[in-house]
Amino acid sequence: MAGGRTRVSGRAAALCILTLCLGCLHVIALKPQLFTRLGDLPFSAQTPISYQTFYFDQKIDHFGFLEDGTFKQRYLVADKHWKQPAGPILFYTGNEGDITWFCNNTGFMWETAAQLGAMLVFAEHRYYGESLPFGQDSYSDSKHLNYLTSEQALADFAVLIENLKSTLPGAQHSPVIAVGGSYGGMLSAWFRMKYPNIVVGALAASAPIWQFPGMVPCGDFYKIVTQDFARSGYNCDANIRKSWKAINNVTSTVSGLQWLSEEFNLCSPLKNVMDTVTFKNWLQETWVNLAMVDYPYEANFLQPLPPWPIQVVCKYLGFDSTVSDYELLHGVSQAAKIYYNYTGTSSCLNMSQTATGSLGYLGWFYQACTEMVMPMCTDGIQDMFEPEEWNFQAFSDECNAMFGVRPRADWAGTVYGGKDIASHSNIIFSNGGLDPWSAGGVNYNMTESLVSIVIPEGAHHLDLRYSNDHDPPAVRAARALEVKYFQKWISQAKKAPQTSEPNI
Amino acid sequence: MAGGRTRVSGRAAALCILTLCLGCLHVIALKPQLFTRLGDLPFSAQTPISYQTFYFDQKIDHFGFLEDGTFKQRYLVADKHWKQPAGPILFYTGNEGDITWFCNNTGFMWETAAQLGAMLVFAEHRYYGESLPFGQDSYSDSKHLNYLTSEQALADFAVLIENLKSTLPGAQHSPVIAVGGSYGGMLSAWFRMKYPNIVVGALAASAPIWQFPGMVPCGDFYKIVTQDFARSGYNCDANIRKSWKAINNVTSTVSGLQWLSEEFNLCSPLKNVMDTVTFKNWLQETWVNLAMVDYPYEANFLQPLPPWPIQVVCKYLGFDSTVSDYELLHGVSQAAKIYYNYTGTSSCLNMSQTATGSLGYLGWFYQACTEMVMPMCTDGIQDMFEPEEWNFQAFSDECNAMFGVRPRADWAGTVYGGKDIASHSNIIFSNGGLDPWSAGGVNYNMTESLVSIVIPEGAHHLDLRYSNDHDPPAVRAARALEVKYFQKWISQAKKAPQTSEPNI
Repeated sequence: MAGGRTRVSGRAAALCILTLCLGCLHVIALKPQLFTRLGDLPFSAQTPISYQTFYFDQKIDHFGFLEDGTFKQRYLVADKHWKQPAGPILFYTGNEGDITWFCNNTGFMWETAAQLGAMLVFAEHRYYGESLPFGQDSYSDSKHLNYLTSEQALADFAVLIENLKSTLPGAQHSPVIAVGGSYGGMLSAWFRMKYPNIVVGALAASAPIWQFPGMVPCGDFYKIVTQDFARSGYNCDANIRKSWKAINNVTSTVSGLQWLSEEFNLCSPLKNVMDTVTFKNWLQETWVNLAMVDYPYEANFLQPLPPWPIQVVCKYLGFDSTVSDYELLHGVSQAAKIYYNYTGTSSCLNMSQTATGSLGYLGWFYQACTEMVMPMCTDGIQDMFEPEEWNFQAFSDECNAMFGVRPRADWAGTVYGGKDIASHSNIIFSNGGLDPWSAGGVNYNMTESLVSIVIPEGAHHLDLRYSNDHDPPAVRAARALEVKYFQKWISQAKKAPQTSEPNI
Repeated sequence: MAGGRTRVSGRAAALCILTLCLGCLHVIALKPQLFTRLGDLPFSAQTPISYQTFYFDQKIDHFGFLEDGTFKQRYLVADKHWKQPAGPILFYTGNEGDITWFCNNTGFMWETAAQLGAMLVFAEHRYYGESLPFGQDSYSDSKHLNYLTSEQALADFAVLIENLKSTLPGAQHSPVIAVGGSYGGMLSAWFRMKYPNIVVGALAASAPIWQFPGMVPCGDFYKIVTQDFARSGYNCDANIRKSWKAINNVTSTVSGLQWLSEEFNLCSPLKNVMDTVTFKNWLQETWVNLAMVDYPYEANFLQPLPPWPIQVVCKYLGFDSTVSDYELLHGVSQAAKIYYNYTGTSSCLNMSQTATGSLGYLGWFYQACTEMVMPMCTDGIQDMFEPEEWNFQAFSDECNAMFGVRPRADWAGTVYGGKDIASHSNIIFSNGGLDPWSAGGVNYNMTESLVSIVIPEGAHHLDLRYSNDHDPPAVRAARALEVKYFQKWISQAKKAPQTSEPNI
């Protein structure tokens, strides 16, 4: 998981025009909007995971008929607890990554299957993991990337489910519930909105469906990050806010650049102002990532981390106002090493590896450059970052240079309804109070069946994770409530008259 | 308006492979599923029509970012009665034809505008009328036709409305109601289902949203046609049922072919068995068209016709069972001439002109060959036609030969919900009891806000036409009820909290 605003340095953009090689990524000073990348394997004593892997022949283009080819969409099925006929199906709407990772990291579904007598299905999102529409060429150019959209992904899910229901004995009348976290949660919510004929309800965990132009203030995301640090240690946010100037001061000399590189044990020493910009972006993303994974127990989501990692980080950032630049940056380096070297096994800190990049990284960046336009900004006052306005035109130009496409700022709002979604039904929006993505989430009950669950002590989709002895009561309550809604939707579906099949 | 099953003769398909010239159409023995083509100009004493014509730069592809070009979508605006600010907008979701024709033939909207203080907007469907994504090349091949889908059309409507609301002073909070008939009615219903953020409700008049595989029996359409003839005159359906065999008998000799050609005053005499098949298809389409336009007053929809034209036609078909083949076919020819030569101005009957073809004709055929797969069949027992099964594979092969695309039988059901649409709201489905397309319509109240209005004496979307002294009471009541629903939706929209714009 990584987050924050998407930015391409001019240099990186120039290097990467339409080549899209993975090698390019190492020189990109990106702070991608990619939420979820790679994470932890299940810790001990968790519900054992066992599934079968299948591949479905999915149309490359659901919205046109010229391209009639298919690709193999991967999906995973676990039916150990499924009560057929007509037992429910929990369907994970895969997001921007390898589906096996989501499968392994959505403990909530595994823990709920037995209780509901449910089959679990995890469907991979096209262009991620093994589900590549054009194999190794899928990312080769904008022509091959053209079918990477959320609408196509939702259509994949719909067609796959219809196929499962018509081919799996006992599944014909199974109510299906969509479950997803982060972008996967957005997909779950949108899936219920656009295909209520396919899913009876959706759990959209930490889904920032309103993080689009004109819907929420662009600064809220970083405000929440800042609040997380402010509450986790004395002067913690204030010292991070001061650190940017300190970095500028120290790196104004060659010796300062060298000192900072050594202090942070950087794999590639800083050499110039451009590197300093990269360094600050990297630090900013580090703080954002910490805010997302500020879990109450030891976990390994983006990195192996201690319980409440921001509290641990902030122990190194409790200076009074009289601290010198060098003292302050020493503290920052100690803090950063909590995130990057908690296990003590890293030989040096690699600025290009705040998040484990793979195809998922590039794919999400393409999505951000097309539909998923998520404005972010900072002012340095209400947040602890250097001021930076949201500049759509500059962003669009960077996207055009990199992919040959331009984002459509208003499209997501038009197609998915923005704030005007009250006519839909049966969606749970769960959000964590610590999670910066909650800024773009639905945090109030819109209607009786479009409900919000807020977990004050929760980071990014904590509720989807395995239960843990250190879980705060709010997340336990959230999971219990979510299951209650599932049961209600299942019961509603069973009461509804089954479609009578005409004699055709 | 023309209807019935789509069929391409082998010869025509072979001639037309990927050339798609309009000239080809004259040799195609098609019974197209195109509902609406050209129709009457408003009769006397009707609400005067006055509108402005505009063009909107619409994305050619809403669902991909490689093709970033735009085209000029035509739309018509009449704001004479509009009460701004926030007066409602009645938005006609244009179907497969020139939008000025729909504008001139949807008198119901013109008669309702003053009562509601509404603005009228008529939006042209892409690929029809003047709204050609690639100008004269739009129909040149399957590559250029690739953006002709209902999903793209709905996205056009959504983007256009968002633009109107953000640019027209006083329109920002205007509730918008979708109105459409036939395929346009399907679009209205689907528009409300897919974009409830854009339209508060929809009137889907004579919209066969269930005329898709697996939803309604394929024979119902022709059963209704048959019933219309059965109720309109003694032995009328029985004699038409007998006529096919009589045609076969008579055309088994060269002299019989000649006799029949002269009897029907055909422009091109019948020469062989192939022509006989074409002739029977043409007659079948004639009876279907009559069923669609069986209006209670003189009208000019497909052809100038007397009031209750089927009753007039049936006067020539009241034979007892002892009638000879020649006598029977003489009656049939008299009947056909009511449809083709009511005004007495036709010098001969042209079998390629059951409906006025234009780009609309070809466009709809492409749509039928991709998404709009509408099974039709006859058994000769419950209907008055020659038995013919629905053969999807043959249809698919014909589409492939003609356009290089294959229909996807299940897609419309998946994307638009089929029978599982009960979670949607605020849609009126109106249907006429005489209209064969009512077979695929919603003819019962699904929920409190998904309502059906049946007009027993109504043909194809009679309720959308201008009011007339000869209107049956049911259509008057239908229109009044429709306006009541409009008022309810408008009132609901005004009560709903306006989206608060964050300070961004």
